[in-house]
Amino acid sequence: MEEEGGSLPAKKDFSAWYNDILWRAEVMDVRYPVKGLYVWYPHGFALRRAVYQSLRDLLDVDHQEALFPLLIPKTEFMKEAEHIKGFEEEVYWVTHGGLTELDIPLALRPTSETAIYPMYALWVRSHADLPMKLYQIVNTFRYETKHTRPLIRLREITSFKEAHTVHATWEDAERQVEAAVVLYRAFYNQLCVPVIVSRRPDWDKFPGADYTIATDTVMPDGRTLQIGTVHHLGDHFSKTFDITYEDQDGDQQYAYQACYGISERSIAAIISIHGDDRGLVLPPDVAPVQVVIVPIIIGKRGEEVLLHAAACEEELKQAGFRVRTDSRSLRPGAKYYHWEMRGVPLRIEIGPRDIDAGSVVSVTRLGEKNPMARAGLAGSVVRMLDRFAATLRARAEERMKESITRVTSMDEAVSAIASGIAVVQWCGAPECAEEVERIVDASILGTDVRSPYISDTGGPCIVCGKEGKPAILGRSY
Amino acid sequence: MEEEGGSLPAKKDFSAWYNDILWRAEVMDVRYPVKGLYVWYPHGFALRRAVYQSLRDLLDVDHQEALFPLLIPKTEFMKEAEHIKGFEEEVYWVTHGGLTELDIPLALRPTSETAIYPMYALWVRSHADLPMKLYQIVNTFRYETKHTRPLIRLREITSFKEAHTVHATWEDAERQVEAAVVLYRAFYNQLCVPVIVSRRPDWDKFPGADYTIATDTVMPDGRTLQIGTVHHLGDHFSKTFDITYEDQDGDQQYAYQACYGISERSIAAIISIHGDDRGLVLPPDVAPVQVVIVPIIIGKRGEEVLLHAAACEEELKQAGFRVRTDSRSLRPGAKYYHWEMRGVPLRIEIGPRDIDAGSVVSVTRLGEKNPMARAGLAGSVVRMLDRFAATLRARAEERMKESITRVTSMDEAVSAIASGIAVVQWCGAPECAEEVERIVDASILGTDVRSPYISDTGGPCIVCGKEGKPAILGRSY
Repeated sequence: MEEEGGSLPAKKDFSAWYNDILWRAEVMDVRYPVKGLYVWYPHGFALRRAVYQSLRDLLDVDHQEALFPLLIPKTEFMKEAEHIKGFEEEVYWVTHGGLTELDIPLALRPTSETAIYPMYALWVRSHADLPMKLYQIVNTFRYETKHTRPLIRLREITSFKEAHTVHATWEDAERQVEAAVVLYRAFYNQLCVPVIVSRRPDWDKFPGADYTIATDTVMPDGRTLQIGTVHHLGDHFSKTFDITYEDQDGDQQYAYQACYGISERSIAAIISIHGDDRGLVLPPDVAPVQVVIVPIIIGKRGEEVLLHAAACEEELKQAGFRVRTDSRSLRPGAKYYHWEMRGVPLRIEIGPRDIDAGSVVSVTRLGEKNPMARAGLAGSVVRMLDRFAATLRARAEERMKESITRVTSMDEAVSAIASGIAVVQWCGAPECAEEVERIVDASILGTDVRSPYISDTGGPCIVCGKEGKPAILGRSY
Repeated sequence: MEEEGGSLPAKKDFSAWYNDILWRAEVMDVRYPVKGLYVWYPHGFALRRAVYQSLRDLLDVDHQEALFPLLIPKTEFMKEAEHIKGFEEEVYWVTHGGLTELDIPLALRPTSETAIYPMYALWVRSHADLPMKLYQIVNTFRYETKHTRPLIRLREITSFKEAHTVHATWEDAERQVEAAVVLYRAFYNQLCVPVIVSRRPDWDKFPGADYTIATDTVMPDGRTLQIGTVHHLGDHFSKTFDITYEDQDGDQQYAYQACYGISERSIAAIISIHGDDRGLVLPPDVAPVQVVIVPIIIGKRGEEVLLHAAACEEELKQAGFRVRTDSRSLRPGAKYYHWEMRGVPLRIEIGPRDIDAGSVVSVTRLGEKNPMARAGLAGSVVRMLDRFAATLRARAEERMKESITRVTSMDEAVSAIASGIAVVQWCGAPECAEEVERIVDASILGTDVRSPYISDTGGPCIVCGKEGKPAILGRSY
């Protein structure tokens, strides 16, 4: 499936780079004949598998995975008023089965509250059933009319992880919201993707929620990408879908709920934040191939080199690594190019001289080249990959830090927004938000910001001058 | 989520038993408010995860996983005439996005040939790209108007594994068909589910295929269940979708294709074939919980028993088992009932007397009870589970054998069909097939039967008396 021709645009031209790297690294093919629908190449899908396995491992500690239908009858979908309003313009409707018109149109889930909560009404009986914490990883659909973009703005979100929890009290649900934020931080830490957590303004919360906590990252072009949201649903849905439990006194009570989601935007973030002019740079935890071995075949010792390569591969496999030996009859340079494009964190080269010296040559995807003793190879690779991940994390954190600017005037805000996030003081009034958003041409992403780079230093609202709190402003995808 | 009330119907009343066990064992909930759509409970989903992991492991040896969109534009879907005819009555159509009518209706994939092959036309360039072997595990949709049944006849098939391969020649595709049959046999061997492989009659092959090889099993009520199909597609689709490759002489050639699928019917087969009056009986390879440890807490030594149970759990986890300790404050009998219903292959009981004797009590899901030395526990469990799987396999094979009857008259066929499969000699003429199907009220499932219990002994066609070949007749789900 390998495509030829031209080379990857420089990453400083981010939009062109992003479009190109997706097919050059065989992540996604955009040529499917429907707007907003894309095809996962095997390499991209292997990355997706590893990323979602990592998410599953974190969730499985105290959640259970389940699966609910894609199709939601219009009658259920229309029950929660705010929720409908939030989604009515982007829901796909199935109206026909074969040649027959359906009695009740079926929505393709844009998110699954209205598919899951009628079942929760049956499943939740008593306080002993709570908390209930389930999740599913599914395809969801949005009829996007804006510009679509692979992994970022799609009509079929192929990989939506949505968790839905039920609790006895509002406070229990709040604690779950906080636990979910911690879980999402742990997940993005594994991906070496820095995040900034904040509370979305009221007008931007999930339709039907009490409040929404969002996880954003900053893309190389300075725009923000929402890569995780956590919603406190209060008792809105439990009242609509009649999710009640018998408390310890034998009385029926409405339950409280939380829900939280992550999509393949997590993969867009990995690609965008770590990649460089030569291709993907993948965090070791989720790289489909963590180590590639390239035998350097010179002269008569080819057979011997291949045997040594096979022994190294076996040793690394035994140690639990995803490893591949590239013994194709290509120049080493062509192989390096191939695997660098696909983001493999570590390359090991073995030639006759290395065999004689009892060593191999290791080259990280960031270009750090070292001899490595053949003895104890697996241990050395563990250490090398740990260091590689730490470097990715530190590099990305540094860029995140640089992209955040505290400002006190509109002019400063306008200039800060061009390369990332502006932190302003805001009094909380919607009129002031409108004013600053209009002048700066950006959105207030959130308040109650949790980031090591932003502290509440006090100060007046950038618009009205009343006492304000820090709010982050950005242009989001 | 546990439900109470009544008990599981006896398995001899198979239909009632099947409906009931699905919720009692927490596999599926049938109360979702749309006909033919069901909800996977966490326990059922854990079984699904294990079953599909087993399938992935087999496929990953020489296939790659990818993912193609659910929505297929009508224009693509309508390209292959036979294929459309086969599916037109059961395709769901999306006609609206939000409040807007779509220009081109979108089909929910009933199967993905028409989604995948336009991409294959782009991906396949040269003989060096072949064979191409990809698969995906996806939800597919059929607007079933017949009686629906969980895991067996659904409107959303949640777990369709479909593989699609491309080859240079018809013979290469034929070899892949045979390789897929071998792979499916290996898969069902892990599930301890016996299969009978045959070639479907021409009128029953996949729409657009040269021929179809099917894998059937026999359910407890004697009806057959198709649990895997392999299709030789010839060059029908490659000509429709223009999938060509440059051969070694530089000429463009049409490619040949095969495709093969397995759905959650594989799980219906596990449940139906192994289960008994007390619930599920799961093959160890795919049981979500392979070993449950029940501490028997009597008198003052509760703490000590729990410590011993924890040590056993840790030891078995280290050995790679999926193990759970049930330390709820329930009577042991209630715990036994709970885990037997859910099919756990092996129960280990630990009480004070066992601790004193340096042993534990092991009880298989088939009721075999033995003391087991505490020392070397993991090794003993390995052997016990291997023997348990062998027993399941042998038991199921025996029943499969008993359900197959060779017959030479219509009367014998009628009586054989009541409890399974009848083997008749058939000349191959459609008129003779119609005649036997009408009289026996069953279908010819296939010819070229591959089963250790059926050999070609020769003999005249049951209808016309001309020379015939063995064909299997059955009533299928």
